[in-house]
Amino acid sequence: MKIAVDAMGGDYAPQEVVKGIEQARDRYADVTFDLYGQTDKVQPLIQNSERITVVDAPEVIEMGDEPVRALRRKKQSSIVLAATAVKEGRADAFFSAGNTGAVLAAGLLIIGRIKGIERPGLTTTLPVVVPGDQDQFLMLDVGANADTKPFNLYQYAVMGNYYAQNVMGLQNPRIGLLNNGTEDDKGDMVHRAAHDALAQASDLNFIGNVESRELLNGVADVVITDGFTGNAVLKNTEGTALSMLKLLKDSIMTGGLSNKMGALMLKGAFKTVQNKMDYSKYGGAVLLGVKAPVVKTHGSSKAVTIANTIGQIKTMIDQQVVPHVVDYFDAHADEMAQAKESMSQK
Amino acid sequence: MKIAVDAMGGDYAPQEVVKGIEQARDRYADVTFDLYGQTDKVQPLIQNSERITVVDAPEVIEMGDEPVRALRRKKQSSIVLAATAVKEGRADAFFSAGNTGAVLAAGLLIIGRIKGIERPGLTTTLPVVVPGDQDQFLMLDVGANADTKPFNLYQYAVMGNYYAQNVMGLQNPRIGLLNNGTEDDKGDMVHRAAHDALAQASDLNFIGNVESRELLNGVADVVITDGFTGNAVLKNTEGTALSMLKLLKDSIMTGGLSNKMGALMLKGAFKTVQNKMDYSKYGGAVLLGVKAPVVKTHGSSKAVTIANTIGQIKTMIDQQVVPHVVDYFDAHADEMAQAKESMSQK
Repeated sequence: MKIAVDAMGGDYAPQEVVKGIEQARDRYADVTFDLYGQTDKVQPLIQNSERITVVDAPEVIEMGDEPVRALRRKKQSSIVLAATAVKEGRADAFFSAGNTGAVLAAGLLIIGRIKGIERPGLTTTLPVVVPGDQDQFLMLDVGANADTKPFNLYQYAVMGNYYAQNVMGLQNPRIGLLNNGTEDDKGDMVHRAAHDALAQASDLNFIGNVESRELLNGVADVVITDGFTGNAVLKNTEGTALSMLKLLKDSIMTGGLSNKMGALMLKGAFKTVQNKMDYSKYGGAVLLGVKAPVVKTHGSSKAVTIANTIGQIKTMIDQQVVPHVVDYFDAHADEMAQAKESMSQK
Repeated sequence: MKIAVDAMGGDYAPQEVVKGIEQARDRYADVTFDLYGQTDKVQPLIQNSERITVVDAPEVIEMGDEPVRALRRKKQSSIVLAATAVKEGRADAFFSAGNTGAVLAAGLLIIGRIKGIERPGLTTTLPVVVPGDQDQFLMLDVGANADTKPFNLYQYAVMGNYYAQNVMGLQNPRIGLLNNGTEDDKGDMVHRAAHDALAQASDLNFIGNVESRELLNGVADVVITDGFTGNAVLKNTEGTALSMLKLLKDSIMTGGLSNKMGALMLKGAFKTVQNKMDYSKYGGAVLLGVKAPVVKTHGSSKAVTIANTIGQIKTMIDQQVVPHVVDYFDAHADEMAQAKESMSQK
């Protein structure tokens, strides 16, 4: 299999991207890589070019560029050229640590939606902090679509179910709808209608509404949310976790000697927590619902995270997540049309 | 001034409610209290009945009761009778630690909206964790309304601005709109329209869109949000903070002797953090936009929190927050009608 890599995306590109790809190449013998980027900058960084080819992409989409405009204007950018290679079948998946909006737009506009899927959803994995069978859960959509209809939430659940089964290896994933209370009638109109549709879906293990307070306790394996709320909750989890660590460090530093000694001894525990909360180690965010794996890691990703994310992409390809989703939506086209019709009447 | 108290609401009612009210009575010489509850249970708990009168309310709305139905069926409950006293001018404010939905419904349906305000918003105070002038910020709506229009968000900003000035003592509070990015054009249709309206409001110090990642860093003094997202973010902040503390404790407990010694020494720091994150100490959630202060503390509130919340209510009454808001919406009725008209066309 071949993965098209945006070598210019991310805070530490192209150095850490190249380093991560070389680690992944050493780890996965059946994967080859096309690295899209400025050849003069990328080529010299490669220590061993086995299964790695640099494809020249003279333009770079910056982190601050307006996504759709950047795609249109920078046709020779690494993002546009890599996504185009996937669209044309010259690569099996697209990986980037660059401008999230541009990566999503490239997935949607260049690679394209799977037939029958109205809105692809951005999917991420977050840690479960209580001991149990699962140490992570899936959440989607975390920001591909701000305006979400009940039918979109229903389709996210179908896609999330496939991903949890095929990539996370869960037998019968518990699917929860993020809502403002656990009772069946909670939520705004969109979430009430989505709850009703999900409750009737016989091929989903829908456990009902879940609250954001319980997410990190593993209340569900797949958390379905609209992209506006999902984005707010994801960023809030990051922000609150960082604030808690900062608060603890601050009160240690102002707390005199015994606290500093305590802190020294607790270094290991702090490290464990930081590691646990660092969800990027589970891989990147996946745009589910497009015709090939499109995976985006955090802009601050270093080589190890990038190599792990390539592992995640390899699993998606090995497990045929995209073909499975395509088949499902082909086979259920009539059902989907009916579901959409009935939900749009609410 | 007189405060109507739901003596039966909360996990530790009526004991802690009575205790908290006695503390508040000792602290605030000009406040009298009517305690609504089952006389046989409440009266014996009162040690000193100075400025405290028990009003018999034989029924109790439980935490699990469906709010609107409970209000209708339990006419002799502490919540219904206390709210009715406020509506009829026999008390100046309503306090409860009970069923949130029932308290909100009593505020809306019994005490009633201020003329010109379409949707009252539930307002809470959260901690700022970085050092600075402000150690707290205000957020609304955190759950009164799940379905929110741009005009509602605009009115929340006007009310939040008053509250921050009059109760929190801020001169020119920075008002931010919680959105999925800081750029002006971010968000779903509702938030884009609200952003445009707020950007044109000359009497508000609107600083633009803010992200949930930055809230605890004090990015704004007043954070405006729809009740669905606000509720999710509030509960997520609580859940993530608790999870972080739990994770740290767990890794200390499994980390051997040096960690346990470290933990012992760090006890003070942990305490500081827990105290900082315990936003209930700043007071209760206020339903802004109804004709009198309606304030709800966490169900798990103990006496100290309840006494502090009475202080908050006293400030609201002393500073005439409600009359100010009434005057504003009276004086700006035409503007509001125009704003509503223009926003409903989007």
